Parts: sequence; structure tokens; C-alpha cells
Amino acid sequence: MKYLHTMVRVNDLEESLDFYCNKLGLEEKGRFEVKEGRFTLVFLSAPGDDSAQVELTYNWDREEFGEARNFGHLAYEVEDIYAVCERLRHGGVTINRPPRDGRMAFVRSPDNISIELLQAGKALPPCEPWASMPNTGHW
Amino acid sequence: MKYLHTMVRVNDLEESLDFYCNKLGLEEKGRFEVKEGRFTLVFLSAPGDDSAQVELTYNWDREEFGEARNFGHLAYEVEDIYAVCERLRHGGVTINRPPRDGRMAFVRSPDNISIELLQAGKALPPCEPWASMPNTGHW
Repeated sequence: MKYLHTMVRVNDLEESLDFYCNKLGLEEKGRFEVKEGRFTLVFLSAPGDDSAQVELTYNWDREEFGEARNFGHLAYEVEDIYAVCERLRHGGVTINRPPRDGRMAFVRSPDNISIELLQAGKALPPCEPWASMPNTGHW
Repeated sequence: MKYLHTMVRVNDLEESLDFYCNKLGLEEKGRFEVKEGRFTLVFLSAPGDDSAQVELTYNWDREEFGEARNFGHLAYEVEDIYAVCERLRHGGVTINRPPRDGRMAFVRSPDNISIELLQAGKALPPCEPWASMPNTGHW
């Protein structure tokens, strides 16, 4: 038995790829356009960690998602949590839970999927602007 | 960068562990009871595939989850999709999308998290009772 992927739906594929790849740092591993079904699947993974993937499902006809609490978040370990948060913030992404402790942060995808970032190894020393940045919204 | 886990919330920890472990086949890898926060975290993974985990969050005070479409499903590859579906069905789990094609099935966790099962390698030959079993509900 083997974990393959977590699937999340997206309403704007370009905006989502910008978020998941350019800002979060995942890489596109495969893309399948299914004209008959009017959907596109894109498989993403962390660089060097191909086996655990996120599948983006883009239905060409817009959907309303709502919000439910039974799905929590996707979690990724990162080499430098400050660098990833800076890249996300620079890209216009709100850092809902800034890494004040040099260890943990939360952001949300364009479709409100919560994403947890965890510093690999020991927490980094506290560092501005993160150390004094308040939480924003929920995640 | 490395995938760590997908977190899903559960409203009944025993019922959920019965589903995810006894019926689906995952193994418990760690459990953390946080009395001050009134929650329990349980980390699960497929046997022999420890690095990609599911985190169950059980808040001791019951929550209403609702349902949203932005989270899709968790997917697992299995060695024998008929055996896993039989174990699930025997345990009282509805096979929402039976493996009529010997390749793919969907079930739902007690908290309505969709779980996709995919046959490793080639599809198995069609086989009753699955081949003629209709879909039930959605997933």
C-alpha cells in the first residue's frame, strides 16, 4: 500500500500554478487535459520528492466550493521557512500565521486550501519582520 | 522541500481509527494528546510508506464540518483492490464507486473524506460482486 496524492480542486489553473509552483515551490510533474470531460489534471510535487503528489483538478466550468472543516491542510517541510514565506509574501500571498517562532507558518491557496510550512531540523532564530507580525484571518 | 502529511479532522477518534486502520489498512505511527488544547493528533501511514502521512485531528469538543468541494480526496495504491474493498465492505463501509474495472474504487471516511483506491500495476480481471455493482451516492 502506498500513498499517491492528495487531490484539491482549483477554479483558476494559471493562478493556482502560480501559487503552488512559483510561490510555494512545487514542480509540475504531469498534465492531462480531458476535453470530453472538460477538466484538466495537473500533478505537482516537492523538488526531489516525486512520490508524494498533489493533484490539481481544474474543471473548466466554474464551481462553487464553500468551506468545510473536515479537510485540514497540506504540510511541507522546507529548508528555510523565512525564504519561502518571503517568496510567498513577495508574490502577494498573505502569511496567515507568520513564522514568529522560526518553525511554523500557514498560508492559503487561491481556493482556501490551508498549507502548513515546517522548518526542517531546528527552528531558526527569531527574525523580523516575522517575529512581530500578527496572525491574519484563520487557516 | 518535502511532503509531510495531509491533515483531516475527525469527530469520533475510535470510529475513525477503525476505518483508517482496521478497514483501509493504514498504521498508527504516533499519537499526541494535548490536554490543554483539548485535542488529539494521530499520525497514520501506509505500511512500508512512512514518509507520507495522514494526520487525524480530533478536537474533543464536537465540530460541525459541512462539506466543501475544494478538497478532493486522498489516494492510495493497493496490491489487491478487491481484497481491500472486501475488507471495507465487510466492515460496513459503502463502496461508493465499486472497482467494476478492477482498477479504481472510491469510499468515504466517517467524516466524508473521499478516498481513492488504485490497483497497483495492471487492472485486475473483472470480478463479481464488483463488476455489476452500481455506484452509491457521490465521492
